[in-house]
Amino acid sequence: MSTPYDAMWEKLNLDLDAHAGLLQVLGKFYGDIYLSQSGRLKGMEYLDFVLSEVHGLRIKELQDAKARGKKVIGTFCVFVPEELVLAAGGIQVGLCAGAEAGKDAAEKVLPRNTCALIKSFVGFKLSRLCPFIESCDLVVGETTCDGKKKAYEIFSDHAPVYVMEIPQMKNSCDRELWRAEVLRFKDRVEQVTGNSVTAPKLREAIRLVNDRRRVLQRLNRLRAASPVPISGRDVLLINQIGFYDDPVRFTENIEKLCDEIEGRVKAGEGVVSGETPRLMLSGCPMAVPNWKLPYIVESSGAVIVGEESCIGTRNIRDLVDESGESMDELLNAIIDRYMRIDCACFTPNTERMDNIVKMARDLNVNGVIHYGLSFCQPYAIEAFKVEKALKAASIPMLSIETDYSMEDVEQLKTRVEAFVEMIY
Amino acid sequence: MSTPYDAMWEKLNLDLDAHAGLLQVLGKFYGDIYLSQSGRLKGMEYLDFVLSEVHGLRIKELQDAKARGKKVIGTFCVFVPEELVLAAGGIQVGLCAGAEAGKDAAEKVLPRNTCALIKSFVGFKLSRLCPFIESCDLVVGETTCDGKKKAYEIFSDHAPVYVMEIPQMKNSCDRELWRAEVLRFKDRVEQVTGNSVTAPKLREAIRLVNDRRRVLQRLNRLRAASPVPISGRDVLLINQIGFYDDPVRFTENIEKLCDEIEGRVKAGEGVVSGETPRLMLSGCPMAVPNWKLPYIVESSGAVIVGEESCIGTRNIRDLVDESGESMDELLNAIIDRYMRIDCACFTPNTERMDNIVKMARDLNVNGVIHYGLSFCQPYAIEAFKVEKALKAASIPMLSIETDYSMEDVEQLKTRVEAFVEMIY
Repeated sequence: MSTPYDAMWEKLNLDLDAHAGLLQVLGKFYGDIYLSQSGRLKGMEYLDFVLSEVHGLRIKELQDAKARGKKVIGTFCVFVPEELVLAAGGIQVGLCAGAEAGKDAAEKVLPRNTCALIKSFVGFKLSRLCPFIESCDLVVGETTCDGKKKAYEIFSDHAPVYVMEIPQMKNSCDRELWRAEVLRFKDRVEQVTGNSVTAPKLREAIRLVNDRRRVLQRLNRLRAASPVPISGRDVLLINQIGFYDDPVRFTENIEKLCDEIEGRVKAGEGVVSGETPRLMLSGCPMAVPNWKLPYIVESSGAVIVGEESCIGTRNIRDLVDESGESMDELLNAIIDRYMRIDCACFTPNTERMDNIVKMARDLNVNGVIHYGLSFCQPYAIEAFKVEKALKAASIPMLSIETDYSMEDVEQLKTRVEAFVEMIY
Repeated sequence: MSTPYDAMWEKLNLDLDAHAGLLQVLGKFYGDIYLSQSGRLKGMEYLDFVLSEVHGLRIKELQDAKARGKKVIGTFCVFVPEELVLAAGGIQVGLCAGAEAGKDAAEKVLPRNTCALIKSFVGFKLSRLCPFIESCDLVVGETTCDGKKKAYEIFSDHAPVYVMEIPQMKNSCDRELWRAEVLRFKDRVEQVTGNSVTAPKLREAIRLVNDRRRVLQRLNRLRAASPVPISGRDVLLINQIGFYDDPVRFTENIEKLCDEIEGRVKAGEGVVSGETPRLMLSGCPMAVPNWKLPYIVESSGAVIVGEESCIGTRNIRDLVDESGESMDELLNAIIDRYMRIDCACFTPNTERMDNIVKMARDLNVNGVIHYGLSFCQPYAIEAFKVEKALKAASIPMLSIETDYSMEDVEQLKTRVEAFVEMIY
């Protein structure tokens, strides 16, 4: 089936047939998991539209911007300070990493025992399936885990990769290292975009990214109501789209959606009854279109009320201090904010345990599902500590390890159902 | 069977029955793999003795030293600067991490998808099988890989763990971080031992550790001869024992062994004929008693002439500059030397590719076997780059991934034999 974007995709050197197949599967998947929901908010139409056009209109926007001289910078991680990219007049986008497409190609250049997310972004590139990667003037990796750190070395044979080093502890020497890395990134962004990051522009960018964080914080506060006014699936999608869409447009639309949710909460209306078991997800990020576990959970008689994840609270909990005036103050505010991220790449990472327990209590959950991607060692090992912390707080936890395949769906459903039954 | 060390082991809270079982298996294993070799060098008797007494006399020495006020510091990694420990009057020892004993216990606190080396040290501790760990006043971990970095958090519930942060790149900010970490370690060692590290003591310690490196360099030069004068198994054992025995005694004994080897080389004598295919091992460390792959290789008609590994050349290639006088000069020499380590924890790590190719050429090998421990992501991913570098140099490579179990021995033997046949 031809689309208005075929010429653009061809120019981007996508594998048109394989890409069409991917979009078809994605559309079907989205219909089953998202559009089938009843009592959905009207404001979700914006998300449905963005998702349906994520490889179409959004890519056209990027290409048009590029034609006007803008640069596109792709990322895989919440450690990359978008504020600097925006201040330099660039566009930052998350890159495709949530589907199995391209797995075979990836396994030719990477060990099979590599996590699905890594195999996905490498596979998408090698199979020519991701118009975002093809639109990028720079792809920014980071050293958050062994898998990504080493995979970027392989990936750099195929894409213009730049890697930021993330410290592994939070001592003063780590803050110094991170400061050096943020400055090195700023230089590179300035070089790629051809624009200088000035204090006024950086202040504006900080406010803009904070605005997006603020609206997602508002969303999380609203959804905490009982009965739950929005499905966990929908909130995950919102968090996912936040990495792809224009930040100003995104914030405006989610603000409107929040107004709608606020009305629902006031009216005491929910997507499920107030008796539905409330669960929180914690662990590895779920990149588009990785909706497997949320769908399983919400088809098992429970509702998700929080995502302790990079595509969730880890990305939005902390704001950058906006009070700075000088370049140095603004940069320090950015450096400090990103150093607060409670990623499992840090040792120790006790803040995360504290944050999980606090979140579970604040959200009044009946249990937590810890989600690990197979072969993601940082989160797999930390899951043992999370379980311990939650046990001490008398909050039940189910630990799930899976990948992007659909083979284990029935098995996972059985485990989730048993967990829901046990805790409620 | 009772031994003269039972009381000591009991005092160290070892599980005496399980420990006796372990020693029995180890003894049998050692007999089969080591003592069965023909044409062995007389100087290997020192190694046979040390190995036979590794949990006995050596532990007694440590206990006696402790009674005299000395402190014992255990490590798992070549990044921990032994020079500082020796200069502070401490004793540094490698810790048990090469056997499957304790695996079940380890898998209760760590994911099964964790590399065998990590499960081994955690398992040895939890199963009370390692008298070295029990003798330690401090156990020093490091952040070289995700598995170890996060496992130390779990391990610290059971042992007095201190973790050094290892940088992931080699830029100037990384050198600064490493400098801060070396100084922090020095402070901690001084605190634990109660002794100050002075410039004269540090100079002496640098010389002492360099001496051990020098004699192992000499050994590697000598074994490069054809016919090969010493088995690869024996050289691996020597490298392993280097982490356990007193450095002065070790160096003296290996010097004598080298004299003996020199005689053999001059006489044109080898442990195998000059026609035997020469192989090099590259990749993950092989901790005592992990002799599985070398035994398989040397039972398959080939001989090992080099180990590109932490328990091999990575530990001894670079010396610390001995010309410094002041504390600052000496510390800088240490910092620089350890920053040169070509561990897969660095990105990129092109030095390692260069070093492997150079080593393979210098040793005139017929092929390289890349050895990866299952779930060791840094070396698994780097293996793809090693293969590429070797291919460009027209050197065949076989990539092996295994753990400490004996289940795959026959399968590995088939693969190694096929490789040997192919390259020769």
